[in-house]
Amino acid sequence: TPVAAPADLSKLKRIKRELVAPPFVHEHEQVAPGDPRIVEFEMEIVEKEIEVDRGAYLQGMTFNGSIPGPMMVVHQDDYVELTLINPARNMLQHNVDFHAATGGLGGGALTLVNPGEKTVLRFKATRSGTFVYHCAPGGPMIPWHVAAGMVGTIMVLPREGLSDHKGRPVTYDRVYYIGENEFYIPKDEKGNYKRYADVGESYPDTEEVMNGLIPSHVVFNGAVGALTGDKALTAKVGEKVLFVHSQGNRDTRPHLIGGHGDLVWEHGKFSNVPDRDLETWFIRGGSAGAALYEFLQPGLYAYVNHNLIEAVNLGATAHVKVEGAWNNDLMEQVVAPTEMIS
Amino acid sequence: TPVAAPADLSKLKRIKRELVAPPFVHEHEQVAPGDPRIVEFEMEIVEKEIEVDRGAYLQGMTFNGSIPGPMMVVHQDDYVELTLINPARNMLQHNVDFHAATGGLGGGALTLVNPGEKTVLRFKATRSGTFVYHCAPGGPMIPWHVAAGMVGTIMVLPREGLSDHKGRPVTYDRVYYIGENEFYIPKDEKGNYKRYADVGESYPDTEEVMNGLIPSHVVFNGAVGALTGDKALTAKVGEKVLFVHSQGNRDTRPHLIGGHGDLVWEHGKFSNVPDRDLETWFIRGGSAGAALYEFLQPGLYAYVNHNLIEAVNLGATAHVKVEGAWNNDLMEQVVAPTEMIS
Amino acid sequence: TPVAAPADLSKLKRIKRELVAPPFVHEHEQVAPGDPRIVEFEMEIVEKEIEVDRGAYLQGMTFNGSIPGPMMVVHQDDYVELTLINPARNMLQHNVDFHAATGGLGGGALTLVNPGEKTVLRFKATRSGTFVYHCAPGGPMIPWHVAAGMVGTIMVLPREGLSDHKGRPVTYDRVYYIGENEFYIPKDEKGNYKRYADVGESYPDTEEVMNGLIPSHVVFNGAVGALTGDKALTAKVGEKVLFVHSQGNRDTRPHLIGGHGDLVWEHGKFSNVPDRDLETWFIRGGSAGAALYEFLQPGLYAYVNHNLIEAVNLGATAHVKVEGAWNNDLMEQVVAPTEMIS
Ligand SMILES: [Cu+2]
Ligand SMILES: [Cu+2]
Ligand SMILES: [Cu+2]
Ligand SMILES: [Cu+2]
Ligand SMILES: [Cu+2]
Ligand SMILES: [Cu+2]
Ligand SMILES: [Mg+2]
Ligand SMILES: [Mg+2]
Ligand SMILES: [Mg+2]
Ligand SMILES: [Mg+2]
Ligand SMILES: [Mg+2]
Ligand SMILES: [Mg+2]
Ligand SMILES: [Mg+2]
Ligand SMILES: [Mg+2]
Ligand SMILES: [Mg+2]
Repeated sequence: TPVAAPADLSKLKRIKRELVAPPFVHEHEQVAPGDPRIVEFEMEIVEKEIEVDRGAYLQGMTFNGSIPGPMMVVHQDDYVELTLINPARNMLQHNVDFHAATGGLGGGALTLVNPGEKTVLRFKATRSGTFVYHCAPGGPMIPWHVAAGMVGTIMVLPREGLSDHKGRPVTYDRVYYIGENEFYIPKDEKGNYKRYADVGESYPDTEEVMNGLIPSHVVFNGAVGALTGDKALTAKVGEKVLFVHSQGNRDTRPHLIGGHGDLVWEHGKFSNVPDRDLETWFIRGGSAGAALYEFLQPGLYAYVNHNLIEAVNLGATAHVKVEGAWNNDLMEQVVAPTEMIS
Repeated sequence: TPVAAPADLSKLKRIKRELVAPPFVHEHEQVAPGDPRIVEFEMEIVEKEIEVDRGAYLQGMTFNGSIPGPMMVVHQDDYVELTLINPARNMLQHNVDFHAATGGLGGGALTLVNPGEKTVLRFKATRSGTFVYHCAPGGPMIPWHVAAGMVGTIMVLPREGLSDHKGRPVTYDRVYYIGENEFYIPKDEKGNYKRYADVGESYPDTEEVMNGLIPSHVVFNGAVGALTGDKALTAKVGEKVLFVHSQGNRDTRPHLIGGHGDLVWEHGKFSNVPDRDLETWFIRGGSAGAALYEFLQPGLYAYVNHNLIEAVNLGATAHVKVEGAWNNDLMEQVVAPTEMIS
Repeated sequence: TPVAAPADLSKLKRIKRELVAPPFVHEHEQVAPGDPRIVEFEMEIVEKEIEVDRGAYLQGMTFNGSIPGPMMVVHQDDYVELTLINPARNMLQHNVDFHAATGGLGGGALTLVNPGEKTVLRFKATRSGTFVYHCAPGGPMIPWHVAAGMVGTIMVLPREGLSDHKGRPVTYDRVYYIGENEFYIPKDEKGNYKRYADVGESYPDTEEVMNGLIPSHVVFNGAVGALTGDKALTAKVGEKVLFVHSQGNRDTRPHLIGGHGDLVWEHGKFSNVPDRDLETWFIRGGSAGAALYEFLQPGLYAYVNHNLIEAVNLGATAHVKVEGAWNNDLMEQVVAPTEMIS
């Protein structure tokens, strides 16, 4: 491979974005405010034990301490410049593979950092859409690091913002990022989840469970109940909410109980015509998709992976609390449950 | 939530539809005959043991006694008014969540009926397409009731009927409703299927099998062989048949051996452009899709879930007997199987 | 069924194509050179033991000795005329079901050959796209023969060649055929893969593993490592490569690490508008899809099933070696991994 001259981007503006933990997303414009920029992000890799369900402990690996990693937002033709930090307290090598990037194994080939190292990668976001990023340090480390939580999403908005199925501009009032992960936590002979001293100790058993392809947990945002109760998402009747949903490894099928996908980019790529009126959509393992919904009724909604075993028993459920006025034209309880006279 | 005034629908016409057991569908017009109507349906919940394969007994739960529940047909902007009856002889609470409905957990929040109760729900069918309905009584009851058979489909036709990829009107000569369900029937230590006294007794073992995510049976219309032999579907060369296919929980991939999908609404939503010429299509768990095919050759067709293990060994096969004249231009046996001279 | 007169195709030109082993594809024109032709192919069925991973032996069944079977290429409205040979040294009956064909179980009803027999089938390729063909000899033989390797693909090109999302002509510089298969190799009590004297002896154990739906191996082109190292695919920066990907039984989700799908026919049917910019696409079990990508950066790419456990641990990884000049505008290592001063 010939050596390439460094790109001269000295005339481009730079902007630094502070990443925030999911389901929230850092401040951003929906329509690009001007010419392409270099957008700077910084992420630190954190290895840590996480209680993903009561009594079930994952030897987790994370971007910035959260599962999933934070969502980045840029516009098409912006340059993403990421500083990736692997603190000395970690045990393992890590890197990052951006599905939005071109070449170099998505950046994975250029960002492999040992504990105590950092690196800076820049790539041009030439295609719009929601794209997964994840750790991919080589060989069996790849599925293991992903199954340990090292997956996030970047959303590359078209410079002019989103468009509907007729090409008309569309905006969202809120955006939530829901990262679905499945875990493979080993059990002992009695059927109890095993707990490990560190990530290294957990590897052989975890690998064995992984190779059976059946997860012990399927969760949103890193743990059973991470987006329910006090941590439920919120919205108001009349608001358009963009739900970005990623899965780094295993297929899933999001569904909003009592709602729909008004405009769904199932593959997540905004140059394609969105599907309308969907009850359930499909996220291919290793991708992120986006669904826009305008809430029309108040109440508590459940947003689930509609394999209902995975949703309810294994953990893949979020809640959305929606305020506003009920519309009896759309739905009415004509006769409440009443005892029948037999 | 503010209290809403009841909707005044007193000027709308009402029509009552008698539901019929799948794969058949109640009488209906493809193009709406006039203004939106209130369409009345009644369903009774039936808990009962079902032999889903020789010697394999499911503690089933059903809408109207069939798995899947009956298909309802209305037109976009019609109002669906369902009377849901839970007879006193049943053991459990049930409800109904319509993916076609807006708010109130699809109606699930307003229809939870104890044994001996009934309720009436009305919702407006604002979006066209095929949509799953299912029982969703809360917590682990949700996947269990669905896996026990409580899933059906409503088809909301555009008022002007279906259209092809160019927006031209399309009609069907027959419609069949194929509901795919997977069951998780526990085995004893010898590997024989266990049989239970009642639905309650079956719960703990069934839950355990369910959480392993691997079904014991994958069937069309409630049992192995429910749509083969004497119960095969029928059609004639030159007829256009609409196959509506639902799966309430687990993904599937319908395929018609020797045929195709001429127009396929994989997500089932008729406002989207249908795909053409498909060999195999994909139904996301928790959705219903539709495929239109004009038969061009006579013979016995198999309609399968093209995970062929699920189709043949676990049960997901239907047959379609098609009458008409063979067309040697499309296919010809040039040389019948013959011994080679070596 | 009335008896049909044989079709008179005596005025059509004939051309004989020599099949080649995947990932390569026999010589062909992208735009049809004239009127529809009869395209002749010959395939021999080979039963043989195959080492699919170190120490893991499959009692394989193959079309022409390769897994997957060779890819055939014709144009829409051409006639495919296949001579299918089952040599006397084989143990089992076989046939072929073409998803591209109409009627007769895709030809399966007309081609069932015993060891020592041959047959000739002709069908008209009325629909464009990539379509699976596979053995389907009836009952539990169907999933078993497919899971033993008897799957291939035919690509039916539009007569005018491929078109993009705006209907503009598109050509490819190279085409590779990647057939993904999953195997279900039984283990003994110690967890070691069992080896069998012949295909018949392997049947009962294999059937039992198959019915659990969890494969032991998921591979491209018949074995772990069949498309890596010396056998990696090759391309050059600026070349457009068409990747045709089949899976005869089980869903998969191809992804090119560091690349994209510029134009993806996920269902594989060319009359539909291709999706753009995809990170990952989805092949329904029992179908073949196609993705076109113009390589923009040099390097070693991995092409994977993005269930990374299946890709890395179970085998579904290929490599693509791409030559050319690196483009620092698309990606640049701004700061190589460096020790941090703490
Ligand atoms: Cu890592
Ligand atoms: Cu990836
Ligand atoms: Cu119920
Ligand atoms: Cu549902
Ligand atoms: Cu065979
Ligand atoms: Cu097939
Ligand atoms: Mg690229
Ligand atoms: Mg709605
Ligand atoms: Mg699309
Ligand atoms: Mg749990
Ligand atoms: Mg579509
Ligand atoms: Mg059976
Ligand atoms: Mg056909
Ligand atoms: Mg398409
Ligand atoms: Mg291996």
